[in-house]
Amino acid sequence: MSTDYVPSREDRFSFGIWTVGWQGVDVFGSAVRPPMPAERAVYKLAELGAHGVNFHDNDVFAFDATPAERDERIGAFRKALAETGLVVTTATTNLFGHPMFRDGAFTANDRQIRRFALAKVMRNLDLAADLGAKTYIFWGGREGSESGAAKDIRAALDRYAEGLNLLGAYVREQGYDIRFAIEPKPNEPRGDILLPTVGHALAFINSLEHGDMVGVNPEVGHEEMAGLNYAHGIAQALWHGKLFHIDLNGQHGPRYDQDLRFGAGNARGAFWTVDILEQGGYDGPRHFDFKPPRTEDMDGVWASAAGCMRNYLVLRNKALAFRADPEVQQALLEARVDELSQPSLTAGETIATLRKEDFDPDEAGRRGMAFEHLDQLALEYLYGIRG
Amino acid sequence: MSTDYVPSREDRFSFGIWTVGWQGVDVFGSAVRPPMPAERAVYKLAELGAHGVNFHDNDVFAFDATPAERDERIGAFRKALAETGLVVTTATTNLFGHPMFRDGAFTANDRQIRRFALAKVMRNLDLAADLGAKTYIFWGGREGSESGAAKDIRAALDRYAEGLNLLGAYVREQGYDIRFAIEPKPNEPRGDILLPTVGHALAFINSLEHGDMVGVNPEVGHEEMAGLNYAHGIAQALWHGKLFHIDLNGQHGPRYDQDLRFGAGNARGAFWTVDILEQGGYDGPRHFDFKPPRTEDMDGVWASAAGCMRNYLVLRNKALAFRADPEVQQALLEARVDELSQPSLTAGETIATLRKEDFDPDEAGRRGMAFEHLDQLALEYLYGIRG
Amino acid sequence: MSTDYVPSREDRFSFGIWTVGWQGVDVFGSAVRPPMPAERAVYKLAELGAHGVNFHDNDVFAFDATPAERDERIGAFRKALAETGLVVTTATTNLFGHPMFRDGAFTANDRQIRRFALAKVMRNLDLAADLGAKTYIFWGGREGSESGAAKDIRAALDRYAEGLNLLGAYVREQGYDIRFAIEPKPNEPRGDILLPTVGHALAFINSLEHGDMVGVNPEVGHEEMAGLNYAHGIAQALWHGKLFHIDLNGQHGPRYDQDLRFGAGNARGAFWTVDILEQGGYDGPRHFDFKPPRTEDMDGVWASAAGCMRNYLVLRNKALAFRADPEVQQALLEARVDELSQPSLTAGETIATLRKEDFDPDEAGRRGMAFEHLDQLALEYLYGIRG
Amino acid sequence: MSTDYVPSREDRFSFGIWTVGWQGVDVFGSAVRPPMPAERAVYKLAELGAHGVNFHDNDVFAFDATPAERDERIGAFRKALAETGLVVTTATTNLFGHPMFRDGAFTANDRQIRRFALAKVMRNLDLAADLGAKTYIFWGGREGSESGAAKDIRAALDRYAEGLNLLGAYVREQGYDIRFAIEPKPNEPRGDILLPTVGHALAFINSLEHGDMVGVNPEVGHEEMAGLNYAHGIAQALWHGKLFHIDLNGQHGPRYDQDLRFGAGNARGAFWTVDILEQGGYDGPRHFDFKPPRTEDMDGVWASAAGCMRNYLVLRNKALAFRADPEVQQALLEARVDELSQPSLTAGETIATLRKEDFDPDEAGRRGMAFEHLDQLALEYLYGIRG
Repeated sequence: MSTDYVPSREDRFSFGIWTVGWQGVDVFGSAVRPPMPAERAVYKLAELGAHGVNFHDNDVFAFDATPAERDERIGAFRKALAETGLVVTTATTNLFGHPMFRDGAFTANDRQIRRFALAKVMRNLDLAADLGAKTYIFWGGREGSESGAAKDIRAALDRYAEGLNLLGAYVREQGYDIRFAIEPKPNEPRGDILLPTVGHALAFINSLEHGDMVGVNPEVGHEEMAGLNYAHGIAQALWHGKLFHIDLNGQHGPRYDQDLRFGAGNARGAFWTVDILEQGGYDGPRHFDFKPPRTEDMDGVWASAAGCMRNYLVLRNKALAFRADPEVQQALLEARVDELSQPSLTAGETIATLRKEDFDPDEAGRRGMAFEHLDQLALEYLYGIRG
Repeated sequence: MSTDYVPSREDRFSFGIWTVGWQGVDVFGSAVRPPMPAERAVYKLAELGAHGVNFHDNDVFAFDATPAERDERIGAFRKALAETGLVVTTATTNLFGHPMFRDGAFTANDRQIRRFALAKVMRNLDLAADLGAKTYIFWGGREGSESGAAKDIRAALDRYAEGLNLLGAYVREQGYDIRFAIEPKPNEPRGDILLPTVGHALAFINSLEHGDMVGVNPEVGHEEMAGLNYAHGIAQALWHGKLFHIDLNGQHGPRYDQDLRFGAGNARGAFWTVDILEQGGYDGPRHFDFKPPRTEDMDGVWASAAGCMRNYLVLRNKALAFRADPEVQQALLEARVDELSQPSLTAGETIATLRKEDFDPDEAGRRGMAFEHLDQLALEYLYGIRG
Repeated sequence: MSTDYVPSREDRFSFGIWTVGWQGVDVFGSAVRPPMPAERAVYKLAELGAHGVNFHDNDVFAFDATPAERDERIGAFRKALAETGLVVTTATTNLFGHPMFRDGAFTANDRQIRRFALAKVMRNLDLAADLGAKTYIFWGGREGSESGAAKDIRAALDRYAEGLNLLGAYVREQGYDIRFAIEPKPNEPRGDILLPTVGHALAFINSLEHGDMVGVNPEVGHEEMAGLNYAHGIAQALWHGKLFHIDLNGQHGPRYDQDLRFGAGNARGAFWTVDILEQGGYDGPRHFDFKPPRTEDMDGVWASAAGCMRNYLVLRNKALAFRADPEVQQALLEARVDELSQPSLTAGETIATLRKEDFDPDEAGRRGMAFEHLDQLALEYLYGIRG
Repeated sequence: MSTDYVPSREDRFSFGIWTVGWQGVDVFGSAVRPPMPAERAVYKLAELGAHGVNFHDNDVFAFDATPAERDERIGAFRKALAETGLVVTTATTNLFGHPMFRDGAFTANDRQIRRFALAKVMRNLDLAADLGAKTYIFWGGREGSESGAAKDIRAALDRYAEGLNLLGAYVREQGYDIRFAIEPKPNEPRGDILLPTVGHALAFINSLEHGDMVGVNPEVGHEEMAGLNYAHGIAQALWHGKLFHIDLNGQHGPRYDQDLRFGAGNARGAFWTVDILEQGGYDGPRHFDFKPPRTEDMDGVWASAAGCMRNYLVLRNKALAFRADPEVQQALLEARVDELSQPSLTAGETIATLRKEDFDPDEAGRRGMAFEHLDQLALEYLYGIRG
């Protein structure tokens, strides 16, 4: 296991074009960094060791680009991809920036907006397929409401499902090799967003016509904004066979969406995130969706992006060493973690068997779980004083 | 519509026996009120106008009751039900109080605990069926963990599903007219609880063998502890056809589980909760799961319980009047809320139709949604200055 | 007591120019509304019944305005004030919008930025005094950090104090009739902001050279973002004699800064806020610092602004009627609320007296507080079914 | 710098008797561990390397102990202290466990309760002084309310101040070498607690008669329950000269009070906490106030306690190495952290000087702060891949 923590293509790190391209506009202040053409992001990310990128349509060309401008911008992007060997792992649609999306896109009350949104996605699906994207992300950041009567939630879910059903059918008709991944978020920029957590999105997918091609794209910060355990959330998504993509970044609990670089924020959570990704069968890109803080100039932007990958590598080494350590394995046994993989009933038993079971509740009540010892070992891997 | 707000049986209000029976033990202090036998709760709740009750096995008889004691306690409970006409709408199992459940019940690492838990539920299902309960609640408050390695989440979900599958099969074999309802909670008493939100539970149910007989029992405070919108959550549950039961109470956002009486806490949220319950097709009991604050003596306990029902009646009047008000209906039209119920595509249209649509983004971007006017009308119903 | 809820000048409602002027730019989207010259806000707010306004320098003229442009813009503003009779109650400085303030203003690591910030405040203090403002607000939204080593907190507090000391001295030297009010906020746009709550600001003020002229300007949403009780916070500020100004709006607990109109958000909290403002001796303007949601066009903006004032008037009626109700007064007595105003020791007693006190702990432990009854009465005023 | 992380007396680690003694009673379940006599905690903590202890009166003897029982229990405690050499660094009063304290102690509406509470503190101050405690903690966990009218906040602050003034006078009259430290907490077990944060307590202290002998005792989890940065909070307390004591533990943001062992919870926060404690002039004990999770038996309890100390030592090494690293020192310079210690005005300058300052805002707006590079270095110390 290398400990120089230099990313390579094999590590399959990817970034949203909009991450390093964020100019720093927020509710309280204007841009602090110049616009970044998508191709510049590609060249620089390649240099840093990334493997792929994810883009919104309007990361590459402006919302109001003429066809010629659009072609020129896509051409430059494509050239950069070709020259660097970076792949487009994923694509998505900007359905939140333009004023028309003030009340959402697929679930806007205004039917014209919904139709425009569907067409916008359709057009970018064509581009995504052409550029080789295998996953198409749906982050419905403006799908929600600030007040109770303004949004009929059940009607909104009908429209959300209608939209994904239509687009799923379109992808299948076109024969595109693309799966969908819904990215949940509890709030911001809307007061309450539809499909606020991994769980809500997983439930919703079960009601879709092409549900088998739809999974989730959980983002660290989004789940942590609801005070939820991200590693638990992606473990449940894996259990359902639905972890199609991930968005790694950092957050400090319920507050505004911080989008810190991966590793910053909840460091222990990051350890368990990498642990489940590496041992749980996730085989997609290790994708970063973060925002270099507004304090930074472009040097800081690249330092921040490099930090994401480096931190993942550091944590991967730690997580693998933790699982390989015989003392840890002994501690897992003492905590009876393996026992949970045994069915509660033995083959041939029925639930009626349990009626006659002999059992001493008081003795059972005295058994400790030895979790603190186990967790201390894990923490010492995080601290780097073991392994 | 009556405005004296006196509950009647037709209102179908129900209470957990443990609500008015809570003695006030918390992490920092001892009991402030005497134990309350279940029958006493029944007599007094009947007097206050309730229609039904929900019980844990150990609300009626002690964990270590002898068979004779158990029979005596059940007898007294049954007699009170008969004398008052109160129905048992719901039942559940105490799988959290005894020390043996320190690491959970269905998902305890310790297999013996899991087996004991299943048997405990089975026994109480028999009693629940006998007493006429139609819904059986599963609140897995101790199913979770405080640390990362201690719980293999996917194995835990396997065991959770195994447990519900076995118990579902048991109910069907016995021919009981009982459905299951899972009650999610994000944390407390465990650091992170499995199936933390309505969404996670809805997703999980789709993977069960008898999923058709399993729905959710969302609690106001539990969703609000994750900063989620309760009315949105139950609307999604209704959309999935899975709102089998509800737990009404009050909470002030992400903090410890406050279990305030219904109406206290997030008052606007309570308005929208009643609105969706009354217009959304929910037909179960209006159930309260709250804790009279530890400051109260028994008079305060009953005042608190009476307040839950009264506040529901007040809010029901408001919500119905709001929906009936022509000015509100006009405001809903102006906010284009009805338009969301129209499919985005007209019958016969395909998604390809959308390619050629003529549309002026700038004009669309200028359209306001008139939500503030609509929401102000709603707020004035809450305030009682309209309607 | 009027129940038509039409604001008049005597109600002393005021608004930030930037509230109705917010164009809707956020992290995820661009402006949805046209720029609003300050004078337009003044004319329209006057029409709606407001009494005064609060302005940032750059609400009136652009950051890079030439002296001539600045004069023209101030002239138009002054003319609108004169024509409408609106007063400038308060002024403040935009120390957060320009890229240079990325790391703060008074506490920026960069000394040049700090000096520029001080000069910018000084210039606007001159204008504020000229326009008759009596309170000058300091909201240090960019004073903070996203990471641990970047900000030496004690040095930052030194600089913060230096800045306020210098500006306090300047105000006194100039003979301006102006007091300062610090507006706390826990986070956003910085990861952690200095002086995050009312408490931290009150403590800090005690260490200033001209602390007697410095108080606080608590904002509903800012305290509630930290899960704190706003009414308690301003009660403590009043207790210290330091409630110089207030910012009223709405929020739903720990999440991004929602800036909802007053009354929306935590409705019960709004009731207690008005209660303490009306009975607690606060004599400043009833000031609104909110953002009309991005869903709204200009009609929605004005509906939202009008809602703030109307909701205050509604809640004021309720709070006064609650306090005047004999049944409430009786309930307060039963809850022994008056008893808390009696010193614990009688004049002449010493603490040693207490040693010999006869007291039955068990009897004392059984005394209920009757708070639920009292709180239900309050809630019924909020609901408008009493009073 | 030793890297075996074995605690010694010189490290001055201390524990509350109630930490390792917690039996695991919570709102949902009963005791999982046997009672622990105070002397047993002392012997075992000494063995683990602790230096001192903190006790509530009723950690040593029961609330209703007879004088003889009290003497016996104190005798055993004193003997254990003598035999082990452990010191009593701190003491405090249990003003929250008994039912009579349901509405608080110093701020209970009931005057008799307030008088009893004062006497209870007075008696334990005598014992604390006798046992050599130098700091007396006031955690007002029951001082607060769940509802608005029940507590007159300003009257409550009057009584809080009266109580501390009387007890301060008592300590001075008796000539005890004891200082007071107020421990803030935002909520739990009360809905909203008085003096909810470090800031509120610091402000309050300024209004006390013997304020010079009163400081704060901030607890990691309590501040983090309000989403506040603990290291910033204690830095402000140090800036005011008021950091008299600390309570170290772990928490995962706004939720119930988790009281995890130090190092678990927010690991990055723990790094910055140790950094400011070690470089900021704090000279009190490194005190742990945690609860071994309910999953643990006694082996787990001691593992958890040992983990607290070990984690502190690990983090201390990291923090000191971070500050000593020339690359870090260079990064601090590049982030201009040192520049913040320079006054904004040079001696002899007045604020008027700033009017004429030549300054290019655009150039200033382009300057990056290089914080991401600096923070990545810190994170690599946390991870143990540097230093």
